[in-house]
Amino acid sequence: MPSRFELANATRALSMDAVQKAKSGHPGAPMGMADIAEVLWNDHLKHNPNDPQWPDRDRFVLSNGHGSMLLYSLLHLTGYELSLEELQNFRQLHAKTAGHPEYGYAPGVETTTGPLGQGLANAVGMAIAEKTLAAQFNRPGHTVVDHHTWCFVGDGCLMEGISHEVGSLAGTQQLGKLVVFYDDNGISIDGEVKGWFTDDTAKRFEAYGWHVVPKVDGHKPEEIQAAIELAKSHDDKPSLIICQTIIGFGAPNKQGKEECHGAALGEDEVAAARKQLDWPHAPFHVPESIYQGWDAREAGQARQDEWQARFARYQEAFPELARELQRRTQCKLPAELTSEAQIQRAQERAESIPSRKASLACLNELGPQLPELLGGSADLAPSNLTFWDGAKAITPDTPDGNYLHYGVREFGMGAIVNGIVLHGGFIPFGATFLIFMEYMRNSLRMAALMGKRAIYVFTHDSIGLGEDGPTHQPIEQLTNLRTTPNLATWRPCDAVETAAAWDAALKRNAGPTALVLSRQNLPHQERTKQQLAEIQRGGYILKDSDGTPELILIATGSEVGLAMDAATELEAQGRAVRVVSMPSTYRFDGQEAEYRERVLPRAVTKRLAIEAGHPDYWSKYVGLDGRVIGMRTFGESAPAGDLFKHFGFTVDNVVGQARELLDA
Amino acid sequence: MPSRFELANATRALSMDAVQKAKSGHPGAPMGMADIAEVLWNDHLKHNPNDPQWPDRDRFVLSNGHGSMLLYSLLHLTGYELSLEELQNFRQLHAKTAGHPEYGYAPGVETTTGPLGQGLANAVGMAIAEKTLAAQFNRPGHTVVDHHTWCFVGDGCLMEGISHEVGSLAGTQQLGKLVVFYDDNGISIDGEVKGWFTDDTAKRFEAYGWHVVPKVDGHKPEEIQAAIELAKSHDDKPSLIICQTIIGFGAPNKQGKEECHGAALGEDEVAAARKQLDWPHAPFHVPESIYQGWDAREAGQARQDEWQARFARYQEAFPELARELQRRTQCKLPAELTSEAQIQRAQERAESIPSRKASLACLNELGPQLPELLGGSADLAPSNLTFWDGAKAITPDTPDGNYLHYGVREFGMGAIVNGIVLHGGFIPFGATFLIFMEYMRNSLRMAALMGKRAIYVFTHDSIGLGEDGPTHQPIEQLTNLRTTPNLATWRPCDAVETAAAWDAALKRNAGPTALVLSRQNLPHQERTKQQLAEIQRGGYILKDSDGTPELILIATGSEVGLAMDAATELEAQGRAVRVVSMPSTYRFDGQEAEYRERVLPRAVTKRLAIEAGHPDYWSKYVGLDGRVIGMRTFGESAPAGDLFKHFGFTVDNVVGQARELLDA
Repeated sequence: MPSRFELANATRALSMDAVQKAKSGHPGAPMGMADIAEVLWNDHLKHNPNDPQWPDRDRFVLSNGHGSMLLYSLLHLTGYELSLEELQNFRQLHAKTAGHPEYGYAPGVETTTGPLGQGLANAVGMAIAEKTLAAQFNRPGHTVVDHHTWCFVGDGCLMEGISHEVGSLAGTQQLGKLVVFYDDNGISIDGEVKGWFTDDTAKRFEAYGWHVVPKVDGHKPEEIQAAIELAKSHDDKPSLIICQTIIGFGAPNKQGKEECHGAALGEDEVAAARKQLDWPHAPFHVPESIYQGWDAREAGQARQDEWQARFARYQEAFPELARELQRRTQCKLPAELTSEAQIQRAQERAESIPSRKASLACLNELGPQLPELLGGSADLAPSNLTFWDGAKAITPDTPDGNYLHYGVREFGMGAIVNGIVLHGGFIPFGATFLIFMEYMRNSLRMAALMGKRAIYVFTHDSIGLGEDGPTHQPIEQLTNLRTTPNLATWRPCDAVETAAAWDAALKRNAGPTALVLSRQNLPHQERTKQQLAEIQRGGYILKDSDGTPELILIATGSEVGLAMDAATELEAQGRAVRVVSMPSTYRFDGQEAEYRERVLPRAVTKRLAIEAGHPDYWSKYVGLDGRVIGMRTFGESAPAGDLFKHFGFTVDNVVGQARELLDA
Repeated sequence: MPSRFELANATRALSMDAVQKAKSGHPGAPMGMADIAEVLWNDHLKHNPNDPQWPDRDRFVLSNGHGSMLLYSLLHLTGYELSLEELQNFRQLHAKTAGHPEYGYAPGVETTTGPLGQGLANAVGMAIAEKTLAAQFNRPGHTVVDHHTWCFVGDGCLMEGISHEVGSLAGTQQLGKLVVFYDDNGISIDGEVKGWFTDDTAKRFEAYGWHVVPKVDGHKPEEIQAAIELAKSHDDKPSLIICQTIIGFGAPNKQGKEECHGAALGEDEVAAARKQLDWPHAPFHVPESIYQGWDAREAGQARQDEWQARFARYQEAFPELARELQRRTQCKLPAELTSEAQIQRAQERAESIPSRKASLACLNELGPQLPELLGGSADLAPSNLTFWDGAKAITPDTPDGNYLHYGVREFGMGAIVNGIVLHGGFIPFGATFLIFMEYMRNSLRMAALMGKRAIYVFTHDSIGLGEDGPTHQPIEQLTNLRTTPNLATWRPCDAVETAAAWDAALKRNAGPTALVLSRQNLPHQERTKQQLAEIQRGGYILKDSDGTPELILIATGSEVGLAMDAATELEAQGRAVRVVSMPSTYRFDGQEAEYRERVLPRAVTKRLAIEAGHPDYWSKYVGLDGRVIGMRTFGESAPAGDLFKHFGFTVDNVVGQARELLDA
């Protein structure tokens, strides 16, 4: 039977070998955290390498994602489908072993990490999801949702602001099954952290209401073991285990220094480390006895089988609940969802209301049908209008709720939403003002990169926000959303398009959707049945001329009403004008060429786009011969009506510019 | 002599009246913090309403910027040029009294606040600037830089992650002259914060190494007074004064509730508050005795005169230092700066190096000439290559340094940079990977909005970053920068353009500049004298055809070399091709129409833009008839060379696409 040290050294060796072979990567964290990982994975982590999708598995998140080789080594050694060849292919094109752990590449990678701090936030999200799902589904004597979330973090994660947001919220929510290991190695890229990071981290997390196990020797398995047992015994508080470690442990000349953080050790140092660690095996060679010591398949299968039996009993006792839990963990929408039907009904109601209010109407209708909906806002619920009639706050006293008061923590919210959707069982959404999307920006990108159904409700979408002024008025943000790969953005022009946007968001399981909504009233638009159906194409002819149009007006959101009014005026002046409503360029760009040509015929080069946002994006649709009425400057503080006038969003200006185009 | 309570009530009354008149705004914070502000402004704040630019004034930052009416009331009452009419015009177009305090609108507004948490970070930046400037310029017996930085924060500011980043760094830097008042009123927009914010804030800030004065009754002047005295007596630690207050204090039916946070109180409640506060005066009427109690002009002038006399003695003793301090506080560059000359020299050196390395060469040359340069990186100095030869870390032991190790705190860095530049005396820059611009994104926008010379060094600018993979590879970020109003972005193609970019950044005092640099080598480009001069136009002809070109290739950064190679190949095939290097679309768009037409003649519609970033932005220059070779998906983890090939950044693909355009 190999010793713990030998087992740990297998991950050290694989990590330094893979980094050395790639001549690129981060050996320091894997070698420093190897002993912690060994104890956690071999003695505590509940998982089954045969089934990485087992819903009740423990979640493990490597927030310091640059230490990816640690995770790949663990997955390989414990029996996941991640071959030695894959490890040898570390950081090469098409390998599962990307430079940072990428969700969907290697099995067992629970989330994409690398951008620091977000893994910790994902873990908080997963722990919230577990606790909420458990509260919603477990029944006395029937515990079918019951797992831990484990997370490794480095100094960088704890310097990042997001660690505060989610650490604070995790404390408030009393996430007792979240256990975080802090790799306290005193080193970051600029050198010894004491020059820029002197926090008393234990005290800081105690201030958040965490249970802290300080000063654990991260290279002594018995201390790690004891700390984990302590953490497990505290089920009313999240636990932080502060492990003092030596970065690059085992590399005799580079350990404890920044040198071993982010570059291959070099052939000589790798050889020296082999000696130091008493690991005489060839690169990438792991003795069979070590493999056996790590193999988690049999034990994992047994645990899953035990759970399966428990679930079978649950199924018998609560067949409907069990079906519902299965439906939710499989990401299937309820069969009877009325999200599409409500588009038609919105058309019939013909209301002129703010799109944020139309969104609330959607939530009020869909909420009761969608128990998996897990809403929330970063302290703007009354402004975002996201607290629907059936919403119930998730708190330590009511863990079975469906709404998170995230507090003023946009970035934390975004990354927690990612953790919740990665966990499964929920369709989470997070809300704030569109401008504060910027605070949470990289978490949107991570959802898009991972291809997960996160939904964002971004209200107060333009200068229409009014008096709060330029700090609160989005200009370039819509372009930012639209140019993010795999992010679907909707800016609906009325209550009907808002209903269509919600329908699309819920049905899009391959990536996130941003709903960009107005503070102010938007006029209802009349539509034929065909137009109503075409909303889902992202862009469609809302008003057409008789015969070929001379000019096409393209608009979104609050500017569609303006375009319609201008078109009426131009028509009165005898001009043939088409109006295209383009709520989602993402959807429109995905249509077949014929449809796009029908909406925006190549031959019609006189095109005028109108949007109270940055104009440059629209060149894509209006070309060099067209024009855009947009915002090239920041906004101002004033009532919305005054601002629209001031910045040229008037029928007069649109008609004037259209005439210049037509008469050119 | 009016009582303290009466003085404070003047700000309460003006605040609630102005919000009521605008029917929009936030009366809660001004009414809750009035007593604190009264003590601070009347007994401690060193300022002179006659000269809001006095360099040694105390800085006051209202981080909870929605309470703007508190600040406007204070400025008005103490004698700044901010008339009663302006207060009555609160939140109207062209008023100085914007919804949130906007830098450059009303005198005495030190920074634009509103996006929560950033004001606190600005204050930290100001305190760093003061401490560093003092260390660089004060001499024994000659203290010419010596002021406090005071900051008000609300619950929202302290929930935001950025409060952690800058709170932590402020503790490490021992900013003893920073005093922060926490408006602990227990209320945020979603209601009572105890549902989502249960931090022990005193403990948290103690963990950062702050001096904390807890549990101060924010409505008892004597307690506030004592707390401030305590704070002033601790000059080795920043101080946090936790003031328990009642939001909307004085509004009998709404105080202590979220209702009074973000909406006018209503006529009835305003009337009731007048009674409750025993403030019988008409709306916007302040009795003369109260004005006299507030008037800070005489005392302020006396303090400034005293400083002026001190400065005169300093001038006499250290004439050169005094001249240098004046030059720096007036934002004047040294006369002998060689930033322009080094462009020419880079051309002569003809080096093919990474642009991040070219940037370091610029810093090595300019650093010694620019003592006001205050560099820094968010823990990526060895990767960003920003620690130049003459750089010296700012620490508690070496406060006279010129480089900040920000730690892994991008957002904090961005907002601290803003605070430093707002303080004056420095040209700060902050560095990180381009992708992590997203973490600090809103602070860039704030610099652009305020029109201040912040400089960003963003390296690892594309898939050229290689193995770290998609989480680290920018795609949409360049577009995000370029569509931000008043932000100048440069993506240089070689060492020469890099030198030009630094020259432009240093000389641009009206707003921030982002330098977007490569990790990998970039080939040197030959240039004529005219081409060399034209770099500053942002876009120029780098290679031309004989006669009118059939096709124009437009490229930036690492893709310029590719465009040049493709052009050579196309030329060999007998095609007339022009290559336009476009390092700064911001600069190019600002050129006269004739120049732009000369570079991109309207008649040449066959245009192919090449950039390893999102393609949509380039439609602006290539129109509907052109094409873009860009990145519509996320990147991958692999060596850079493999990635460029994989994603089509090859001569073959460029030539192929060019041929399709030409032969269409």
